[in-house]
Amino acid sequence: MAAAPQDDGEGGAMGLFDEAIAVRPGGEGVWHADLRDELTIVNGRPNGGYLLAVLGAAAVAELGDADSHVVSATASYISPPTVGPVTVLAEVRRRGRTASQVHAVMGQDDRRTVEVQMVLAGIDAAAPDWGNIAPVDLPPEAECRSTVGGTSSPLSGLTAPPLSQVLSLALDPATLGFASGRPGGEGEIRGWLRFVDDRPFDPTSLLLAVDALPPATFEIALTGWVPTLSLTAYIRAWPAPGPLRVRMRAGIIAGGRVDEACELWDSAGQLVAQSTQLAAIRLP
Amino acid sequence: MAAAPQDDGEGGAMGLFDEAIAVRPGGEGVWHADLRDELTIVNGRPNGGYLLAVLGAAAVAELGDADSHVVSATASYISPPTVGPVTVLAEVRRRGRTASQVHAVMGQDDRRTVEVQMVLAGIDAAAPDWGNIAPVDLPPEAECRSTVGGTSSPLSGLTAPPLSQVLSLALDPATLGFASGRPGGEGEIRGWLRFVDDRPFDPTSLLLAVDALPPATFEIALTGWVPTLSLTAYIRAWPAPGPLRVRMRAGIIAGGRVDEACELWDSAGQLVAQSTQLAAIRLP
Repeated sequence: MAAAPQDDGEGGAMGLFDEAIAVRPGGEGVWHADLRDELTIVNGRPNGGYLLAVLGAAAVAELGDADSHVVSATASYISPPTVGPVTVLAEVRRRGRTASQVHAVMGQDDRRTVEVQMVLAGIDAAAPDWGNIAPVDLPPEAECRSTVGGTSSPLSGLTAPPLSQVLSLALDPATLGFASGRPGGEGEIRGWLRFVDDRPFDPTSLLLAVDALPPATFEIALTGWVPTLSLTAYIRAWPAPGPLRVRMRAGIIAGGRVDEACELWDSAGQLVAQSTQLAAIRLP
Repeated sequence: MAAAPQDDGEGGAMGLFDEAIAVRPGGEGVWHADLRDELTIVNGRPNGGYLLAVLGAAAVAELGDADSHVVSATASYISPPTVGPVTVLAEVRRRGRTASQVHAVMGQDDRRTVEVQMVLAGIDAAAPDWGNIAPVDLPPEAECRSTVGGTSSPLSGLTAPPLSQVLSLALDPATLGFASGRPGGEGEIRGWLRFVDDRPFDPTSLLLAVDALPPATFEIALTGWVPTLSLTAYIRAWPAPGPLRVRMRAGIIAGGRVDEACELWDSAGQLVAQSTQLAAIRLP
């Protein structure tokens, strides 16, 4: 992909994220993309939510219905890809009147890297017909901390991960014990999330947002990385412009695995996305 | 499959459920199974958790490691199969030291019916290292109702679904408003679950258990069936013998879809399985 800004189809220049998830048709369900360095976290590895967003963009393109977006996605992380060219093989499993199903695999150098099962459907901005999951209470964004990790924390290498060039994360100081080597013990991390260039969130970029926080287990124990085994995201509403409120909570740690749930609300207080993941963890 | 009880490898006769999930090798990742009438719910359709258990059994057989069980599974229900022969095509995507990934598709008459991404790993019965999700409070099993649905309820055809020949479900009367046409409004259904023949639960049968309750939305509104778009199950511990406590809760209903979460505890009070699903719903 050219480094120069591209047209976004509405007369404006494409932002970095839109360039980073752009897919080019290769025919027969094949889509080409270029994984960008700016969306990596540790060791030059692209963020898992970023990979999900690329796969989602390929699925939307493959289905070819402008009104359908990813409403459910489950990713298996098989082998981490590196920055650079990848190929997505997308196949529509069922084209339905109200919902369709798409399967997609991201390959790099003839290796499967990520495999995803998705449901695509229409998404609106309307309030829920039933239920309400109240937005997490947070200090004002200006009182939160946009960098995480001192030298004693498990995030020492992440003080300014490349991803922070794209996403601005401002964490509630009450959940930042881990950053100074003293996990608070609650197993919860929460904060504000926005694009650095203030790009508004939409269904595809919410797939990035559901995996943008550090592992909630960092507030339990100072461990190494907590690799995701399976990540499931549901996109529930079209987000209003503005920053997202995000809360990630650990459930139980048992048998070397942990479940973590993430909820995201838009600036209007509406729940716009949920995710759950099972991850491997090695306690000290 | 022969109707006669089969040997379970430990000198005993196989029970109905074990026969119903038995898979026979067809070579090259192909496994054959016969979907049984006893595990259907409405319109002769096999229960979704039953299909997940058959796919899980095929994945375990394909991996061929006696110590590995399904710890995470996400199913896309593409096209409902009927009772009778099915073929499962299972492929190990990654064989890892502590966790492996398997993809499986159930086919019938050259149609894809269910597609599943799974993680397989060891499962023990140990208590969690961190966290505790307290078991749901329930009246004694004898005070719960083992049949659901009067003639005025959306479950009128389910008073004794075939599945009740295999699984005994005793629901808390406080969550049975829907059965008399008056949903309680809480969006929660809870109760006790056991095999009719008192077969103990294990990781594979927990895949059936996570989808054994009526939709929690029945306690919100009297709708038609609430078809699952995507179901994700995590198996967290090897269950102690005895009945399971099960709670299913709806999150929000928005844009014609609902999220429902299910938690299951064993007789020792330990969380043994969790599931989340996104389903389509049409409110009256």
